[in-house]
Amino acid sequence: MKTVSENRCFGGVQGVYSHVSQATGTDMTFGLFLPEGAEDGPVPVLWYLSGLTCTHENAMVKAGAQRWAAETGIALVFPDTSPRGEGVADDPAYDLGQGAGFYVNATETPWAPHFRMWDYVTEELPRLLFNAFPIEEGAQAITGHSMGGHGALTIAMSFPGRFRSVSAFAPIANPTASDWGRKQFAAYLGKDESLWAGYDSAVLMRRLGFDGPVLIDQGTSDQFIDLLKPEALAAAMTERRQGGTLRMQKGYDHSYFFVSSFIEDHIAFHATALMG
Amino acid sequence: MKTVSENRCFGGVQGVYSHVSQATGTDMTFGLFLPEGAEDGPVPVLWYLSGLTCTHENAMVKAGAQRWAAETGIALVFPDTSPRGEGVADDPAYDLGQGAGFYVNATETPWAPHFRMWDYVTEELPRLLFNAFPIEEGAQAITGHSMGGHGALTIAMSFPGRFRSVSAFAPIANPTASDWGRKQFAAYLGKDESLWAGYDSAVLMRRLGFDGPVLIDQGTSDQFIDLLKPEALAAAMTERRQGGTLRMQKGYDHSYFFVSSFIEDHIAFHATALMG
Repeated sequence: MKTVSENRCFGGVQGVYSHVSQATGTDMTFGLFLPEGAEDGPVPVLWYLSGLTCTHENAMVKAGAQRWAAETGIALVFPDTSPRGEGVADDPAYDLGQGAGFYVNATETPWAPHFRMWDYVTEELPRLLFNAFPIEEGAQAITGHSMGGHGALTIAMSFPGRFRSVSAFAPIANPTASDWGRKQFAAYLGKDESLWAGYDSAVLMRRLGFDGPVLIDQGTSDQFIDLLKPEALAAAMTERRQGGTLRMQKGYDHSYFFVSSFIEDHIAFHATALMG
Repeated sequence: MKTVSENRCFGGVQGVYSHVSQATGTDMTFGLFLPEGAEDGPVPVLWYLSGLTCTHENAMVKAGAQRWAAETGIALVFPDTSPRGEGVADDPAYDLGQGAGFYVNATETPWAPHFRMWDYVTEELPRLLFNAFPIEEGAQAITGHSMGGHGALTIAMSFPGRFRSVSAFAPIANPTASDWGRKQFAAYLGKDESLWAGYDSAVLMRRLGFDGPVLIDQGTSDQFIDLLKPEALAAAMTERRQGGTLRMQKGYDHSYFFVSSFIEDHIAFHATALMG
């Protein structure tokens, strides 16, 4: 693992690190914020999964999360959203290929060799983090924005007991029924739609639910709301009688101005679950 | 109007008053909490509509609302849930007749002469209150529990501009599709279901929405949740892109232990809208 940069930030350290990934067969870069308390021993951790076109950097510089993570003593991990580089398949569209991994393990040509973001985020990166940094494996929570909200919700529900709480900002909530999802799943996973369901939060909410607190924020003026389908997740949550909060935030759009407006609430929400 | 009782309460006065109602053709009793500040001039008001089997008294003694109303300087009105007394039609069932007015104007025999709770709560009682007490007509909000949550939501949406905010605890959210609703609407309003729709919050949410903040709390262990149908309201809110918050409160049931656990949040929510 290589240290790309480390900066003092709200009394802690905002680091960027790169490493050779077995899962993706590429170099991968991630951001990690460690609060001051990490100097004295392991701290709880909040995973933040980013959206389409993002790298490890977007949320790290635009979400304003470190202030609240420092205040509550929580580490933040910012993984990249896909493998990258020469020799890695790509597509001219912003929503397929590099920057658009969708947190799945691709099985189809030409994506299968590198696009294994599910394994990267759920197996390889956690192992690396718990070995190399003072982070409590037993105190994890997860959140994300847009495609990353989809990742956070599907991963949280697929690993019962691993995450104490889950939240999402404007998640792609029902990708198997949306143009943000069907195109990518067809490319990465193939035509058999039964293989897509494990990567759809509305579907998983009906099948599995989540045994812990859930918080979803969605802007009512989100320019992509018809692709995000919050109504599918709302229906699944309420019909399942899943505990959780869904906030339709009036006038907010899909940008980081929306995320940064509510990141304090999300970190406080996770802190309650992580410190409890 | 007759003063039934007045008690000092959190620095203000919890009163109970009765009066002859033109709307119902009976005596009606209501509770009114005035905070200390009402001695110096008009204060904002939060309407609290109660549920099946309740009188003006249940929320007044069991919700724990006065503490927070006193702290935020808001008056609370607790109307009764139906006309009562000899000569008023009734039914042996707890969910029809006295104690079960459903906040509608009945048109059918034997209910039509007295069961006009919609007019009582939206016209007669407000007029009386604004004439007799230091309450700001321009600063109203509304909430309610169960059948009263249904009342609060349908009334708020039917009078655009009157209420700055609306909330509900475990509302009967889709009575036209529930045994809590179909039986009563058939009795009070007759067989023509097109006349029922104006009394259904999920339907009105799709048709009209609400131009202001909305907060809904629903217990996941509510023994009546299948009759309440929070999923219908969640679908209507999200599909309309209505601003608002829906909280599925894990493990809470339908009782006043649920209401009293979250009344602080609701009053703070309305205070923000009323004081803004």
